[in-house]
Amino acid sequence: MECIISELLQNPILQARVASGARFILKGTRMSQRGNPMTDPITDRTFEQKLDLLAEVAVKVGLGLASGQELVMTASLDALPLARRITEQAYRAGASLVTTLYSDDEATLMRYRHAPDASFDHAAKWLYDGIGAAFKSGAARLAIAGGNPALLSNEDPGKVGRANSAVSKAYRPALELITRHAINWTIVAAATPAWAAAMFPEDAPDAALAKVWEAILQTTRINTPDPVAAWKTHDAGLHHRAAYMNEKRFSYLQYRGPGTDFKLGLADDHLWLGGGTTAGNGYYCIPNMPTEEVFTTPHKDRAEGTVTATKPLSHQGTMIEGIKVRFEDGRIVEAHASRGQEVLQRLIDTDEGARRLGEVALVPHSSPIAASGVLFFNTLFDENAASHIALGQSYSSCLKDGDTLTPEQLAAKGANDSLIHVDWMIGSGQLDIDGITATGSVEPLMRQGEWI
Amino acid sequence: MECIISELLQNPILQARVASGARFILKGTRMSQRGNPMTDPITDRTFEQKLDLLAEVAVKVGLGLASGQELVMTASLDALPLARRITEQAYRAGASLVTTLYSDDEATLMRYRHAPDASFDHAAKWLYDGIGAAFKSGAARLAIAGGNPALLSNEDPGKVGRANSAVSKAYRPALELITRHAINWTIVAAATPAWAAAMFPEDAPDAALAKVWEAILQTTRINTPDPVAAWKTHDAGLHHRAAYMNEKRFSYLQYRGPGTDFKLGLADDHLWLGGGTTAGNGYYCIPNMPTEEVFTTPHKDRAEGTVTATKPLSHQGTMIEGIKVRFEDGRIVEAHASRGQEVLQRLIDTDEGARRLGEVALVPHSSPIAASGVLFFNTLFDENAASHIALGQSYSSCLKDGDTLTPEQLAAKGANDSLIHVDWMIGSGQLDIDGITATGSVEPLMRQGEWI
Repeated sequence: MECIISELLQNPILQARVASGARFILKGTRMSQRGNPMTDPITDRTFEQKLDLLAEVAVKVGLGLASGQELVMTASLDALPLARRITEQAYRAGASLVTTLYSDDEATLMRYRHAPDASFDHAAKWLYDGIGAAFKSGAARLAIAGGNPALLSNEDPGKVGRANSAVSKAYRPALELITRHAINWTIVAAATPAWAAAMFPEDAPDAALAKVWEAILQTTRINTPDPVAAWKTHDAGLHHRAAYMNEKRFSYLQYRGPGTDFKLGLADDHLWLGGGTTAGNGYYCIPNMPTEEVFTTPHKDRAEGTVTATKPLSHQGTMIEGIKVRFEDGRIVEAHASRGQEVLQRLIDTDEGARRLGEVALVPHSSPIAASGVLFFNTLFDENAASHIALGQSYSSCLKDGDTLTPEQLAAKGANDSLIHVDWMIGSGQLDIDGITATGSVEPLMRQGEWI
Repeated sequence: MECIISELLQNPILQARVASGARFILKGTRMSQRGNPMTDPITDRTFEQKLDLLAEVAVKVGLGLASGQELVMTASLDALPLARRITEQAYRAGASLVTTLYSDDEATLMRYRHAPDASFDHAAKWLYDGIGAAFKSGAARLAIAGGNPALLSNEDPGKVGRANSAVSKAYRPALELITRHAINWTIVAAATPAWAAAMFPEDAPDAALAKVWEAILQTTRINTPDPVAAWKTHDAGLHHRAAYMNEKRFSYLQYRGPGTDFKLGLADDHLWLGGGTTAGNGYYCIPNMPTEEVFTTPHKDRAEGTVTATKPLSHQGTMIEGIKVRFEDGRIVEAHASRGQEVLQRLIDTDEGARRLGEVALVPHSSPIAASGVLFFNTLFDENAASHIALGQSYSSCLKDGDTLTPEQLAAKGANDSLIHVDWMIGSGQLDIDGITATGSVEPLMRQGEWI
């Protein structure tokens, strides 16, 4: 599912982040110096030119900003160079006004260190309501991701949780306009020193920052001769995949790979989505840059067999590694982790829906994010690195007319309900996936991690 | 009158500034290197300690922030170091949440260079409404002044005017809560490179910035052994002056000095104000740091004689120098300027009220701002450097129960009405002022610029 809530909640303007232990990196998967997949042999653009191009592509292709439209942007102070470029491109594209809400990691930490305890149940509701009013009066929304994934890792998890909860509640009305695509919006990333340090702890700060920028430019197709054309082609490809899957109307997906033998039912009237969308205000946007996935809602009662994660899962400050779980009738009945077992257990014990699935997404192993070989500690990237499933809450937009259904109707079609939504990666270069129709016919979809 | 509207409108978050030609400095008044009045012989605090102290005094004395109260701060990105210190002090004082709305001069300029023409009639109403909602739900307000006074001096004055007008309209409901002191608020300044360059164009950037910081620290009494105690004493002094003037109920003030022989009537039921105030939410604040003035509303029909400005007036990109005007029945009947005559003439031709007076303020020549000998190009400072009068709009808060009166009732008491409010400085070390009562008795108030 496209990155919406988790990324926005992590956006620093919200003054609250999901804590994460970002110092762990999967050994052996880090980008090698030789054969670096992130060099740019195709174009001879300078770095400055690439940043300008990223800003232009974000405004024109990602956001689809209309002339005369207002823009509300959120960014960390560390993302200032890209925010300024996006501001210029937005005005060149005819923006009536660009308002950027900057956040400051230092200010966030000061709150955790000095504010009274009651502070953590408080959020700037006036600001979220203001943002919602901007959306309703026609504004577009651009978020720059890339904050410090470890910012709150040393803070009291209780306070972090309360602050997140207060923000979620205050932000809900405005966020709802985003999740149902009432307006055109997009998320792009800027490399920041803290993020770079988390991703490449062994590199010097400048080198680490340069690597993150290259990873962003590579995965957002800026390192191609014509990025706008490359995005149009890519977007058409995602739409084609989603249309194909919708036409086939598979009842089940069958996964086979190392440690995985897993049959997953899809929800009745499920809808595969991927790539850009025409928002309710009439403007076409691609909400995530990068995006590589097609995704839909699985059936909460129809998952059988064993599935093994192919990447570690960073959850609330803990890295859960070596996850292997067994499903019966859609429900996790056994769960193991080589590291973080207790956190995994607590996670799936959150509520009844936490041990069932709310999302299934297919991503080829050749995606630029997977090819980069790095863990980004950022949902915008990591969920586009591999085929994945998500524990917990499903998305009604992945069911036909889903936004009009009651909770009971959604549940009847197999849509899961939970307080959590946690993606975990199960794709690899050794994963095969078949589609199985209602009549039992089997069609190969992916072999060795690639679309057939 | 305390700095409210002009300063807030110039705050960069509003994305629009009053254009001003900031490169002019009154020759001969710049701070000398020898006998520099801004050195700090009293304390041995480091610069960092002084900034912390400025932040603490701003929060505790200026803002009077209450424990559990939310704070909305506006600041230029260039003011980040002080904004962070204020954030820390606010949380230490018990703030529930500090939200800082940062603005970026570069983004403002990009708008003028690239945005479509219709942009300049647009403002972020959703943001001003949000700020107003924050005030209504209990938030305090702190503005950090100190932006580039020349930022828009090369931009199209028509666009600048339209953008200011759009902001004024959008901001009105929230600003109204400030002007009638419904909430506790304050304005402090941070030195910024662009402001320093405008004030000290002949100095190296670092030296200029250091001079502005020292001017701020000196004029805000941070360079005293106990700034909190110094402010309490100073605030009590201003209240004492205002109470004395209110008790005396003078009908006229008589000014005599070089080029000035001027008799100014005060409005019926006028009220002298100065120093801090208990806001409608119950918290005591000192809205301007620095503040040196006591001020009230003159009678719009009662000004006679000639008055000569003692400092140049920076107005919409032009420096008006050598102003000398003659009043009859409260109305300017002759106006001369040695430079900028045409702009002065256009200014007083704005409307009927533009050639009458809306404010009179008394400031001793020994005020720390006057003693600094520099022109700040910033109302927060310059209006506290000398006794002044203002052409144009009067303030209803300077009349007894003024906030409850109709426009007709205000006018009947002598309160002026105009689209403009422009302060100009008439005080100096050679100015004598007397108070004249209704019965004609005369009392000396100031001699050679100092209170008797």
